[in-house]
Amino acid sequence: MSEFWSTMVKRTEPYVPGEQLDQADILKLNTNENPYPPAPAVIEAITEEMERKLHLYPSPTVDQLREEIAEQYNLTKDNVFVGNGSDEVLAFSFMAFFEPGKAIRFPAITYSFYPVYAKLFHIPYEEVTVNHDFTLPVEDFFQSEGGVIFPNPNAPTSVYLPLDQVRAIIQNNPELVVIVDEAYIDFAEASAVSLVKEFDNLLVVQTMSKSRALAGLRVGFALGNPDLIQALIRIKDSFNSYTLDRLAIAGAEASMKAKDYFRQSTEKIIHTREWVSEQMKEHGFHVVPSQANFIFVSHARIPAKTLYENLKEIGVLVRHFDKLPIDNYLRITIGTDEDMELFFKKLKTLLD
Amino acid sequence: MSEFWSTMVKRTEPYVPGEQLDQADILKLNTNENPYPPAPAVIEAITEEMERKLHLYPSPTVDQLREEIAEQYNLTKDNVFVGNGSDEVLAFSFMAFFEPGKAIRFPAITYSFYPVYAKLFHIPYEEVTVNHDFTLPVEDFFQSEGGVIFPNPNAPTSVYLPLDQVRAIIQNNPELVVIVDEAYIDFAEASAVSLVKEFDNLLVVQTMSKSRALAGLRVGFALGNPDLIQALIRIKDSFNSYTLDRLAIAGAEASMKAKDYFRQSTEKIIHTREWVSEQMKEHGFHVVPSQANFIFVSHARIPAKTLYENLKEIGVLVRHFDKLPIDNYLRITIGTDEDMELFFKKLKTLLD
Repeated sequence: MSEFWSTMVKRTEPYVPGEQLDQADILKLNTNENPYPPAPAVIEAITEEMERKLHLYPSPTVDQLREEIAEQYNLTKDNVFVGNGSDEVLAFSFMAFFEPGKAIRFPAITYSFYPVYAKLFHIPYEEVTVNHDFTLPVEDFFQSEGGVIFPNPNAPTSVYLPLDQVRAIIQNNPELVVIVDEAYIDFAEASAVSLVKEFDNLLVVQTMSKSRALAGLRVGFALGNPDLIQALIRIKDSFNSYTLDRLAIAGAEASMKAKDYFRQSTEKIIHTREWVSEQMKEHGFHVVPSQANFIFVSHARIPAKTLYENLKEIGVLVRHFDKLPIDNYLRITIGTDEDMELFFKKLKTLLD
Repeated sequence: MSEFWSTMVKRTEPYVPGEQLDQADILKLNTNENPYPPAPAVIEAITEEMERKLHLYPSPTVDQLREEIAEQYNLTKDNVFVGNGSDEVLAFSFMAFFEPGKAIRFPAITYSFYPVYAKLFHIPYEEVTVNHDFTLPVEDFFQSEGGVIFPNPNAPTSVYLPLDQVRAIIQNNPELVVIVDEAYIDFAEASAVSLVKEFDNLLVVQTMSKSRALAGLRVGFALGNPDLIQALIRIKDSFNSYTLDRLAIAGAEASMKAKDYFRQSTEKIIHTREWVSEQMKEHGFHVVPSQANFIFVSHARIPAKTLYENLKEIGVLVRHFDKLPIDNYLRITIGTDEDMELFFKKLKTLLD
């Protein structure tokens, strides 16, 4: 701590992201990246943009990309906000819709960035205890004081909340904003995007990092009624006029257009997830039913922390959260079929 | 305004960036972009990175780029913070070093984003009237209540503050952070970077958008003592783990290494600025002595607003600020020699 730090810095408790080892020979199953490359059209679009005008500012309003996203979801540009990764979109949302002095609610087991934002912006929060099977006790999110945020599917549990229950949470917080953080929704049953036109207090946040294989490009977006989007734009334009660089904009646009590639690679991952889940059970794991591109597992015999460390020693990186009540679970990203065959080969050496 | 907006949104007065027309045939001299492309090595580095791993998250700590920048300025990695454009770095700095309830000071004529940040984060401010020749009255920045921020060279006036006067401002605010926003410093006499080791309350902010021709890539950085850098890292890690994408990191690294290219293109712009300034005087303009990549001019006869509008009609975009006491000035970016010859050709048709 230093005499020069503001009270805001002093109250921060920064988020710790998963390890990013720049090691070629490691099997990296710890940060839920897509094992497939982005659509070939993405590379083409970035190349073209790069050669044209890197020395010129990008569009501050990012209209074309917003239109492209809107079209995809049967909305208009005014329903779409884009940002530098969904983490930035979430940070702006905390600033735009939540209020110091009014407690928001999120699940006690959830994306661990939520309490970090809340501390930064001085927003009180209530952590809602989840059920034993990690499903959300929906009614406990009704009539919040300051708003609600939850991921669907939830992180790091992979559990999906059906749309009628999402709807119930929105309906029971009519005066407040409900943020549904859908980072993993493309691997799940259905998005709450279909509810955007119905509810003016719903903000759906998505990312291109997972299902669109663009974690390295940093593009996220929010979908909601134009009043909510306008609030996000005001915050952004009071913070940084150009949050998306030219290459990110060009790549993201191309990715939204590559619909077949997107569907096929997403289906491949879902298919892999299903057989990996079955195999894990055969290896003595409890597997939480997943609708994400990762699984959340616990072994009957070996503590998760031991497994995490032993796997790391033999070149497999998964994620372990040293926190009750999930300290005996591992979060394992779904790779390609080949990745997961290698994973099982290595896992067997530990289990035997 | 909407019932869902936070008090933070309600008090925003968003910054309005210069017009970004996506029009090929316009002579764009309004947003101080570099007329030359970035170093060829930048394109190579981005291409290589793009083909390798766009589906993987970038480094959250961005160590390599920070080391590269540190080396350039004879500092260490712990003296360097990097962000998504210097606007983001400035926003984080307002959060990290300025305090609601304690008035900061900046010049009354300056980068118009400062009051925008201040309103967003609820930081009171005093605007220091500048001298008639647009120089800064240095002593008026002494003993501030909450800290000081100013651009050097100043925007949009292009006036440079000599280093001994910068030093005086830092020395006379010993308990508070002084931010020197050096967006245009590579076109000027000397950077305050040389004072970073001497003063623990100095933060120097720079950008790769101007002198490095990377406005489209969004990379800015701050240089200061490790305690200040640590504060910025804490804010960033409470806001967005990955503010720089893989392509921006790779391009910025290559740009820092391309020292000869950087020196040559900067010198070319300075050379052009000098003859353009002389020519403008011959055309009846008052030209403020510039140490930036733009000039700030006023015509003896024709109002600036009229000139701005007439220039726009004939395909030349410059910047006019409709605000006293600079409403009779135009800010004109220095392009290539060919750009500026075309500019004078078009200008003549208006003056005749």
